[in-house]
Amino acid sequence: MKIALAQLNYHVGNFESNTTKIISHIHQAKQQGADLIVFAELCVCGYPSRDFLEFKEFIGLCEEAAKKIAAECHGIACIIGLPTYNHRPAGKELNNSAYFIENGEVKAVVNKALLPNYDIFDEYRYFEPSTTFKCIDFKGHRIALTICEDLWNTIDNPLYMTRPMDVLIKEKPDVMINIAASPFSYNHDEERIDILGDNASRYKLPLLYVNQVGAQTELIFDGGSLVFDNQGRLIDELPYFKEAVTYYDLETKSDLKPLQPATIQKERQRNIEQIHQALILGIKDYFYKSGFKSAILGLSGGIDSAVVCALACEALGPQNVMAVLLPSRFSSEHSIGDAEDLVKNLGCKSETIPIRHVTEAFENTLHPQFQNLPFNIAEENIQSRTRAVILMAMCNKFGYILLNTSNKSEAAVGYGTLYGDMCGGISVIGDVYKTQVFELARYLNREREIIPENTIAKPPSAELRPNQKDTDSLPEYDILDPILMQYIENRCSSGEIIKMGYDEQTVRRVLRLVNMAEHKRYQTPPILRVSPKAFGMGRRMPIVGKYLS
Amino acid sequence: MKIALAQLNYHVGNFESNTTKIISHIHQAKQQGADLIVFAELCVCGYPSRDFLEFKEFIGLCEEAAKKIAAECHGIACIIGLPTYNHRPAGKELNNSAYFIENGEVKAVVNKALLPNYDIFDEYRYFEPSTTFKCIDFKGHRIALTICEDLWNTIDNPLYMTRPMDVLIKEKPDVMINIAASPFSYNHDEERIDILGDNASRYKLPLLYVNQVGAQTELIFDGGSLVFDNQGRLIDELPYFKEAVTYYDLETKSDLKPLQPATIQKERQRNIEQIHQALILGIKDYFYKSGFKSAILGLSGGIDSAVVCALACEALGPQNVMAVLLPSRFSSEHSIGDAEDLVKNLGCKSETIPIRHVTEAFENTLHPQFQNLPFNIAEENIQSRTRAVILMAMCNKFGYILLNTSNKSEAAVGYGTLYGDMCGGISVIGDVYKTQVFELARYLNREREIIPENTIAKPPSAELRPNQKDTDSLPEYDILDPILMQYIENRCSSGEIIKMGYDEQTVRRVLRLVNMAEHKRYQTPPILRVSPKAFGMGRRMPIVGKYLS
Repeated sequence: MKIALAQLNYHVGNFESNTTKIISHIHQAKQQGADLIVFAELCVCGYPSRDFLEFKEFIGLCEEAAKKIAAECHGIACIIGLPTYNHRPAGKELNNSAYFIENGEVKAVVNKALLPNYDIFDEYRYFEPSTTFKCIDFKGHRIALTICEDLWNTIDNPLYMTRPMDVLIKEKPDVMINIAASPFSYNHDEERIDILGDNASRYKLPLLYVNQVGAQTELIFDGGSLVFDNQGRLIDELPYFKEAVTYYDLETKSDLKPLQPATIQKERQRNIEQIHQALILGIKDYFYKSGFKSAILGLSGGIDSAVVCALACEALGPQNVMAVLLPSRFSSEHSIGDAEDLVKNLGCKSETIPIRHVTEAFENTLHPQFQNLPFNIAEENIQSRTRAVILMAMCNKFGYILLNTSNKSEAAVGYGTLYGDMCGGISVIGDVYKTQVFELARYLNREREIIPENTIAKPPSAELRPNQKDTDSLPEYDILDPILMQYIENRCSSGEIIKMGYDEQTVRRVLRLVNMAEHKRYQTPPILRVSPKAFGMGRRMPIVGKYLS
Repeated sequence: MKIALAQLNYHVGNFESNTTKIISHIHQAKQQGADLIVFAELCVCGYPSRDFLEFKEFIGLCEEAAKKIAAECHGIACIIGLPTYNHRPAGKELNNSAYFIENGEVKAVVNKALLPNYDIFDEYRYFEPSTTFKCIDFKGHRIALTICEDLWNTIDNPLYMTRPMDVLIKEKPDVMINIAASPFSYNHDEERIDILGDNASRYKLPLLYVNQVGAQTELIFDGGSLVFDNQGRLIDELPYFKEAVTYYDLETKSDLKPLQPATIQKERQRNIEQIHQALILGIKDYFYKSGFKSAILGLSGGIDSAVVCALACEALGPQNVMAVLLPSRFSSEHSIGDAEDLVKNLGCKSETIPIRHVTEAFENTLHPQFQNLPFNIAEENIQSRTRAVILMAMCNKFGYILLNTSNKSEAAVGYGTLYGDMCGGISVIGDVYKTQVFELARYLNREREIIPENTIAKPPSAELRPNQKDTDSLPEYDILDPILMQYIENRCSSGEIIKMGYDEQTVRRVLRLVNMAEHKRYQTPPILRVSPKAFGMGRRMPIVGKYLS
């Protein structure tokens, strides 16, 4: 049996493009002599479709697409993922299903049993878990078909009460197929290889695993589909962050062969390389899928906006990136110079729009109220917000999308101005800590200087008052970031973090700052997710909660 | 057996105030001779504690609080709600539990089985459902204790596979107690009475039901705890939107008596009355629980800001409300006059800050880029955003919280400026359609004119260009709102709405506008929830999704 794995980039709710893409790959695979082509979980509607799933019309469109796909399935079988109605007398309306289609007809329906409902996942919001499991017979083979999480109930710390493969194995299948929509975070590729390899060796079956690729707003699917032999050895690894189709020949369960040269990575990519590729794909798909072409951002001369500008130029082409310098009376000479150097290095468009006249107009306008009260956070924020108004006006006039340039460290502690530098259509590095931003800058400079050396070397500053430095208000980033990582990614308590050797007062202050900034983060743009715990849908905190604030 | 029901206002994560409040009510009830006092679901930590529940330290604080409470439980028993660890070898880390405490010790633990995971609910994110059920014996009575949703699996359209009371009833209990955290939406009180009354009559047992009261950011708990006899007749109904403690004597299952005059409502409150009370409580608790006293808002002379201003004055006192008139060159005479009349009627503080100098400074500053391109949405938004910057500067200088004044109709179709009039700490009427805002205005005027008649009578306008009217861009609100209601609350498709008799082109356009505005709503403040389907946590839509956009 010749099996094709199709690792493709879908678009949530875009039935036309998803269906066309699936059908054209069925035709190609048939031409290549494949008996079966396997697509990813929920490929028909895209993942995550979120509350679109609550609309009958949306489910109807999924069914219609499945019919169109089935009609093209002659001389080849396919596996697709889609939501279907739960026909049992109780439970949620839908199942997260896989169709096995042969000769123009749905020959088998498999429903997902283990529904992830943590972090960014909300599957139990929509789907009823399956409680029955059955293999599929096809061309003399018996296939144990499961969906994503169904292979993820680990032995050591099981999150679920059941393990679908423990039931399926009793029917003596000779191959496992798993279709998935498993989003990227750095290191996740290794975990995936471990867990899926464990399945292959535990059940002594070859395993073909197909993931989605492409970004859906903040979620980035990295592909990296995997093939294991029946001893749990990885025998093929599809590319990361791009589409790919590969072919395999399955004779017996101990005889599965790639029909093209295998591409197992010799060494794992470094986190920073993965993050770089993920962000490029995230930017690209955000613009492409929302129908926009051009980005705008404010360039301060600092490292955050410089890195975002470089990423945007790589993703969209420098001709589609407008960098705006917005100097105030507090902007240093070197900031303007550094920003200009960056624009030269990148070849993007740029404008310089000084904000002084506007901030003075605000201060004059507010004089009757503010009188002679001292300059403080109010005037600092006026500068940041004036920049946002100018950038948004450029968006409204010329059709740009504003890129947010906040990093994860400042988003965490609330070191940013709501409706000011916290604006944007999408946050590019909001899941990248400041120390990682430096690493990213050095990585971007690996072949030639793109980010000016001075931008990397100088101490970070918001430049909203004379001689301001980030460290006036915050600990050094190499202290701050590990504390944040322990609290946000690892969910450690203040007590645990202090025991690790961090200064007690600093730890308590940092955790308090994080909790006090929930109301700000609530109103910020979606953040491209690259870590196991990003701000946004995957981290849901009370706003008026009292704990640690 | 004398039972006290304590319907109290908790604060998420505020262990000190929640514990103190619970203990002082235990003492009071003991003084009143009660054998048992019943508190609400998750009263120890507040509801919803969201991802705080993922922190071991937080769960530790819950345990600590429970110990303190138990130590005070001598000569009286109590029922409290809190998260506890799941001790089974698999499944999620926590249970949503009730403790039955007697003689200083936890005598029984009941875990919730049916975990709501729809709309604003995320309980399956944290809790493992219980699969075993046992009654509690106390003072010659057998109590079937359940938690909230455990009584909500309806017969006609069951959302869950099990029904805990079907198991408990086999042990022949003589009373049901249900502890809940059931948030308000208009009409929900009637549904609650129906469903709980059905339980009492189906199981032929009296039922005591205790709800939380008070707002936690966007979620408003309305209290309205209920007591039924063993024939399903409502025999007592606690007040709505305020704390209350009531007492009952239970002799046999057919003999349950209130020990104070019963307060069953003769007729249900109108939706608009309920919405009014809910919004007042929502504002009050948002400020009180976040430690702020004073609100600021922009007054346009239009009905939305007028209604919000009146609600804020009622909730916080007029001395704590600052209304700011921010006239532009497009503001009409009557707008300024109407706003001034409102301020006079309410007695709140006010300032007038004309925005003309600032908007001109923006236009001059942007002239090199905009050249002589025609006035359009860019310049319109500059006005709205200038107002936001001024209001936020006032917040930063004087410590106000900005109230957002967008209504649900404009939030739905994106008729508002992101980082402009869509700003604010909390959205007061973002779940109230424009036609309901008019109703609310008339209700606020029920005794004397508060909202100026002209504000109610004139056609709505954003006044961002000469002679602008909302109906230039949108259908009339009495057409728009019912279409929105069918789409948002009832999740009807365009086809279904058209079949109801609405113009096809209008329906398609409105639905498209709603979907195109997801990126705007993603960045807006939390919205006080008064309907069964509010924007925010309860409605999770893709941003770069293609469906209907």
